[in-house]
Amino acid sequence: MSVRSVAIIGLGLLGGSIGLAIGARGLPITTTGWDRDPAVRARAAQRGLVATVCDTAEAAVSGADLVILCVPVGAMGDAARAIAPGLAPHAIVSDVGSSKAAVADALSQALPDACIIPAHPVAGTEQSGPDAGFATLFAGRWCIITPPEGCDAGALQALSEFWTALGSKVELMDAGHHDLVLAVTSHIPHLIAYTIVGTASDLEDVTQGEVIKYSAGGFRDFTRIAASDPVMWRDVFLSNKGAVLEMLGRFTEDLTAMQRAIRSADGEALFDLFTRTRAIRRAVIEQGQDDGRPDFGREHGD
Amino acid sequence: MSVRSVAIIGLGLLGGSIGLAIGARGLPITTTGWDRDPAVRARAAQRGLVATVCDTAEAAVSGADLVILCVPVGAMGDAARAIAPGLAPHAIVSDVGSSKAAVADALSQALPDACIIPAHPVAGTEQSGPDAGFATLFAGRWCIITPPEGCDAGALQALSEFWTALGSKVELMDAGHHDLVLAVTSHIPHLIAYTIVGTASDLEDVTQGEVIKYSAGGFRDFTRIAASDPVMWRDVFLSNKGAVLEMLGRFTEDLTAMQRAIRSADGEALFDLFTRTRAIRRAVIEQGQDDGRPDFGREHGD
Repeated sequence: MSVRSVAIIGLGLLGGSIGLAIGARGLPITTTGWDRDPAVRARAAQRGLVATVCDTAEAAVSGADLVILCVPVGAMGDAARAIAPGLAPHAIVSDVGSSKAAVADALSQALPDACIIPAHPVAGTEQSGPDAGFATLFAGRWCIITPPEGCDAGALQALSEFWTALGSKVELMDAGHHDLVLAVTSHIPHLIAYTIVGTASDLEDVTQGEVIKYSAGGFRDFTRIAASDPVMWRDVFLSNKGAVLEMLGRFTEDLTAMQRAIRSADGEALFDLFTRTRAIRRAVIEQGQDDGRPDFGREHGD
Repeated sequence: MSVRSVAIIGLGLLGGSIGLAIGARGLPITTTGWDRDPAVRARAAQRGLVATVCDTAEAAVSGADLVILCVPVGAMGDAARAIAPGLAPHAIVSDVGSSKAAVADALSQALPDACIIPAHPVAGTEQSGPDAGFATLFAGRWCIITPPEGCDAGALQALSEFWTALGSKVELMDAGHHDLVLAVTSHIPHLIAYTIVGTASDLEDVTQGEVIKYSAGGFRDFTRIAASDPVMWRDVFLSNKGAVLEMLGRFTEDLTAMQRAIRSADGEALFDLFTRTRAIRRAVIEQGQDDGRPDFGREHGD
């Protein structure tokens, strides 16, 4: 089978970008969409995120080969129940959530008879909502598919081809391992960024104005991540609790070691870590996962 | 007085950018420079970072109105001793170091009779060396000057005008307060970034290859900061120990609170923090301290 029609449930950054990518690449796939917020539906129709914005989830998924749930992971169960009455028997149900074991559970409970194949495109920006999406969001990025046991091979093939057609590179992974990997490459970085921005804005001896003025020293990078969607991220931490707490434990151990090195003026320990981490940056750039220009290619005034 | 000649000691990212900015803005200021590394001196001459690259520090500062030490903060004392024999009696000695109380001490010990006015332009990239500098690095960025007690008013005025002429906005601050503010807006963010990149590369259950592949989930931002110059940053932590440990304590308290919120599934605490931090990002952008485009304006492939 190959995917000829896609229904997108949730028309924010991810859902909108999928619709725009299908259009921009001229793929022979019809698109429908729905969002529970009428204002988002109206804006999605204006921007043409999908060909047809429907008034109900049921109508949006009617006859679709592939349904992609693009909602916060805590809302997956509700979204799945909303589409249930309209779902075609042959439809693949997938998603874009940042945690995968919890989503797989929620979807299989809500849709016990459906062909469910969770997925996670590792792509995004700090923006959200129907104006945030753009057609090239997935280009060159990895999409991790976490097929459940006994998953239909043809459906898995079709979903992989779909993401490849959007410009992604596809990797298959066990849901539990996905959650561990993403805890360290995404969830902990977000938690740390949110926390330090919170810490900085709560100090008595340094004003918020000073924090903002002198943010170019490094802090501003963290403010970008800490501007990400609050509902989405609340749900990520609640749904990937085990892996997040595990990785957070490793991080705080290492941070305590650095604290001790600073306190005891152990310059060698600091220098060793600071040298080792440069190699990771080089690899990230070499593998096309970031812009290699200084400062992410940020524009500097004149 | 106004500055007619500048000697730049250390021709890396900061020193090179000062020289290039003077040239690009057509300021009526002659530039000389020196670096202790002959290869850096050769490259600086090729790139024209300053008008005259000298063979000794003494020659470079001879007759200069303003000498700017652009070396790691741990090397300030040595640099100051190297320039001592050539320093003109009227010269202002300044620097660009990221910690200020320790630098003020080191400089006044090495040059007890000189007019010393430490400064810190809050600008930079993750790159270093004689190829890293560019003329617009300081445009729109703050330069914090920390005049010592009894500082000559005319000299302070001349230094302020110099940084303003490079496109910076100047702020005067007590050295101790500077060190506290920068601990939170720069030093702790760097320490956290170095640490999480180290943690991620040391895991047994997640490979380094996976960390790199899926870095677009947030981690890649931290790899940029963690690619910063190791010597410079080792010295920052050793020289600003008190303020860094103080701010690190606040951060880890807050991180522990977030850890508890995740463990006890307190979604409200997470949502509250994640909402509050968005306002800081907006202020950073409104005040021109970061690129407001999604993802720092990073290019997305097609």
